[in-house]
Amino acid sequence: MDTKKYIDSHRERFFNELFSLLRIPSISALPEHRKDMQLCAERWRDLLLEAGADRAEVMPTSASPVVFAEKIVDRSFPTVLVYAHYDVMPVEPLELWHTEPFEPVVKDGKLWARGADDDKGQGFIQLKAFEIAVKEGLLRCNVKFLIEGGEEIGSPGVEAFCKEHLDLLKCDVILVSDTSMVGLDTPSITTGLRGLAYWEIEVTGPNRDLHSGIFGGTVANPINELCKMLAGVVDENGHITLPHFYDKVETVSAQERAMLGAVPYDEEKYKAAIDVEALSGEVGYSPLERTAIRPTFDICGIWGGYTGEGAKTVLPSKAYAKVSCRLVPHQNHEEISKMFIDYIYSVAPRSVKVKVSPMHGGESYVCPIDLPAYRAAEKGYELAFGKRPLAVRRGGSIPIIATFEKVLGVKSVLMGFGLESDATHSPNENFLIEMYEKGIIAVVEFYNQFGH
Amino acid sequence: MDTKKYIDSHRERFFNELFSLLRIPSISALPEHRKDMQLCAERWRDLLLEAGADRAEVMPTSASPVVFAEKIVDRSFPTVLVYAHYDVMPVEPLELWHTEPFEPVVKDGKLWARGADDDKGQGFIQLKAFEIAVKEGLLRCNVKFLIEGGEEIGSPGVEAFCKEHLDLLKCDVILVSDTSMVGLDTPSITTGLRGLAYWEIEVTGPNRDLHSGIFGGTVANPINELCKMLAGVVDENGHITLPHFYDKVETVSAQERAMLGAVPYDEEKYKAAIDVEALSGEVGYSPLERTAIRPTFDICGIWGGYTGEGAKTVLPSKAYAKVSCRLVPHQNHEEISKMFIDYIYSVAPRSVKVKVSPMHGGESYVCPIDLPAYRAAEKGYELAFGKRPLAVRRGGSIPIIATFEKVLGVKSVLMGFGLESDATHSPNENFLIEMYEKGIIAVVEFYNQFGH
Repeated sequence: MDTKKYIDSHRERFFNELFSLLRIPSISALPEHRKDMQLCAERWRDLLLEAGADRAEVMPTSASPVVFAEKIVDRSFPTVLVYAHYDVMPVEPLELWHTEPFEPVVKDGKLWARGADDDKGQGFIQLKAFEIAVKEGLLRCNVKFLIEGGEEIGSPGVEAFCKEHLDLLKCDVILVSDTSMVGLDTPSITTGLRGLAYWEIEVTGPNRDLHSGIFGGTVANPINELCKMLAGVVDENGHITLPHFYDKVETVSAQERAMLGAVPYDEEKYKAAIDVEALSGEVGYSPLERTAIRPTFDICGIWGGYTGEGAKTVLPSKAYAKVSCRLVPHQNHEEISKMFIDYIYSVAPRSVKVKVSPMHGGESYVCPIDLPAYRAAEKGYELAFGKRPLAVRRGGSIPIIATFEKVLGVKSVLMGFGLESDATHSPNENFLIEMYEKGIIAVVEFYNQFGH
Repeated sequence: MDTKKYIDSHRERFFNELFSLLRIPSISALPEHRKDMQLCAERWRDLLLEAGADRAEVMPTSASPVVFAEKIVDRSFPTVLVYAHYDVMPVEPLELWHTEPFEPVVKDGKLWARGADDDKGQGFIQLKAFEIAVKEGLLRCNVKFLIEGGEEIGSPGVEAFCKEHLDLLKCDVILVSDTSMVGLDTPSITTGLRGLAYWEIEVTGPNRDLHSGIFGGTVANPINELCKMLAGVVDENGHITLPHFYDKVETVSAQERAMLGAVPYDEEKYKAAIDVEALSGEVGYSPLERTAIRPTFDICGIWGGYTGEGAKTVLPSKAYAKVSCRLVPHQNHEEISKMFIDYIYSVAPRSVKVKVSPMHGGESYVCPIDLPAYRAAEKGYELAFGKRPLAVRRGGSIPIIATFEKVLGVKSVLMGFGLESDATHSPNENFLIEMYEKGIIAVVEFYNQFGH
C-alpha cells in the first residue's frame, strides 16, 4: 500500500471535496449561520458515506446537529472514534484577509481559508485516511465518526448527546486532529491541553451617556471602573490574584519540565514571527511553560463609549469585556468561573452596576504516553515525518476532550498536524499542503498499527 | 419694548429658522459631513443678514469655515462679539433616540434634536435677541458675530483665524450662550469653565490576532496592558497619579467653596435622574466641587479584540482608547498633555508598542463678576427669571474661550440657558422652550443695559 500514490492519484477530487466544506460559512458563534451549520453537517454525512462508512447520519442536539458515522469491520475488534468539528471561528477583522475567507485558494504550497486548518482541514485528514484504510483493506478495527458543530463556542449540546447515546459512541479510544505540531521538522503529539473558562462582563454607570464636563468627576465612568477591575486580576509578576486560583494547579515534575525545555525553540525567531520586542508572562516559568503548563488570563475583547473618528468627550453609560482563563490540570472550570465572578462582584464599586455572565468552559486534559493508541500514533508520525514525535503539552483547549473522558470513560489521542503559522482563529488562516499529505500518511499508518 | 410680545408674534418664523439649522447634520467629528459644515455656515450667514447685520460672510479657515457678521451702530460705541458654534456632536448610539436626531420635533414643551441646545438652540437665542435689539432700536453698542464649525473637536483653525483677523474681531467683550444654568428656578451664570486635554492611545501586541491557547501567557495581550496603564492613572482616593499633575491647580478659596455649597443640590434626585446607586470621585470634595473645581480623568471610549456575539477566544493584536482630562485653573493643557504622554510611555511594557496621540485641548477660564458686561448680563437674568443669578463655576469646557482671552485679550460672559436634563452630547438632546424664550428676553435686556 502506498498512501502517497493514492493521494497523488486522487489529488483533485480530494481538494474539491475539502473545498466544498470550506465554502460553507459554518460560524457557530453567529446565529445567522444556523442554516450553514445544517448544510455543513449534511456535506460531512455525504462525504463519510462516499469514503466508505456503512452508515452516516445528521443527528439533532440541543444546539447544532452532529454527524455520526460508522464502519463496523468486526464486532470483536477494538473501536476508534474519530472526533472533529465542522464549525469555524468568526472571520473579523475582514479587512486583514488577503483572500475571501470562504473561497479557498491554493497558493505558495498552502491552502488559504477560514477552517483550512481548524478544523475542516485537519478533520479532512481523518476522513481521507479512513477512506484509504477502507479501500486498501487495512482496517483491523471498527471506526466511528462524531463530527460536531459547536467546538468553537464550547460544544453546547454535545455532552448531553454523549450521555443519550452511550452505546452508539462506545469505543476504545478517540482520535482527534485539531492540534498543532512544534514545527514541520519537529513532529510532536500534544499530550496535554489547557482548560478554559470564559465570561462576558457588562458594567453600567449612568442610565445614558453623559456630558463628561458636567458630570465628570462625580459620576463613576464604567470604562474606568472596568479597566480597574480587570487590571487587578493579574499582578506585576504575572500571577493571577483571584483567591485560591492556584490551589489545585498541578505541580509539573522536573522531568516533564525538562522535556518541555528540550523542545526546539528560538526566542528571537518566535518574537520576530509575531513582531514583538519582548515576551511577557508569569515570573519563574519559561515562555513555553507559560503557554503549556500555567494558567492565563486574557481579555479577548473590550468595548464601550465613543469609538468613532475624532474626539468626542463623553462619560459613557456602558462598558463591556469578554475575558477568558486558560486552565491547567487539575483546575475545575466551574470552580474557577465562580472565583472570578465572586472576585469581580467583591471589587465592583457601588457606583456602577456589574453583571458577569459565564460563557463556555472546559477542563484540561492529559494523555498518557503508554496508551497503545498513542504508540500507534507515534509510529504514524515516524513514518510520515521520519522522526519520533515529541510528547508535549500545549496551551490550547478542546474542552469536549475532557468531557469525553468523563462521560464515555475513554482517552483521546491528539494526532494534530497544524503549525503555529496557520493563523487559526485569525485572518488568513492557512494549512500547509505538505502537512495535510503527511497527516494522511500518519493516520493511515495509525490504522495499520492499531489493532495489531 | 416688549420682547415677549415680539417672540409671540414671530413664533412660527423663529421656529422655522431654527429648524432650518437643526436639519443640517453638521457633525464636525466626521469628515463625510464636510459639505454640511459649509451649508450650515451659509444658512447662518443668511439668517444673520435677515436679522439685521450690515454684513455677514462665510470665511475660510484651515478647517471648517467661520461665519462673521457685524452691525456697526457707531464706531465710538463699545463692541460686543457674539460667539457660537454651528457644529454638533455625533449622534451614536442611534437606537436610543426616540426621534430622528436631525428632524426637530416640538413635544412636551421641549424642542428635540441634535443641537437643540448645544449650540444651535442657544446660538439662535443670541441671533433673535440681536434681531429684536436691532428692530426695536435698543442697540447702544456695535455687535459682531463669530460662528464657528469645530467647537466639538477643539476649534481647529479658529486660533489662527483670530490671529489673522485681529482688527475684524476687535471688541470689548465676548458674549456666549453655550453653558447651562443650575436649574430653571435657579438662574445662574457660569463664571468658570474647566479646560480639556484629550488623547487617543493605540496599543499593539502581536502583528495579528493570535490563538489565546497557543500564545496566551507568553505574548502580552494589548487589552490587558491598556487596562493596566489606564487603571494606574487614578488611585483609590480618586486622585490622578501623574507626577506634578496637581502642581498648578488653583486652591479655591473657602469663600468660593461656600458659594458652590449654596447651590441647591439634592443628591438623591441627582442620583435618581441618572439611575446610579452611589456617586464617586475624589476624596475631600463635595460632588459639585468634583465637577466644578477639580480635574478629572475619563476614558471616553475603548475598543479592541472580539466584540461580536458569543465567545471567541483570541489574543488580539490591537487595543485602543480615547481618554480625556477636564482641567481647572491654572493647569496648562499642553503641559498636562505632555505629562500624560510621558506617563504612558514610562509605564508601557516593552512587550507592546504604544502610541499616544494628543487630540484637541484647551485652557480653563474664569470670568470676574465685577465686569460691566457681567453686571448687564445679571440684569438680563433678573428680568427674565425674576431672581438674581448665582455665579458658579461649572465643569464643561469651551477651550476657545481661553484662546479668545489669550489672542484677543478680551473676557467672555457666559450667558448660558441650558439645563442638565438637555442631554447635550447624548441621545435625545432637547431644549426647553420656556428657557429659549427667557433666554431671548435676558439677552435683549443685556443689550438694553450694556453701553449705559
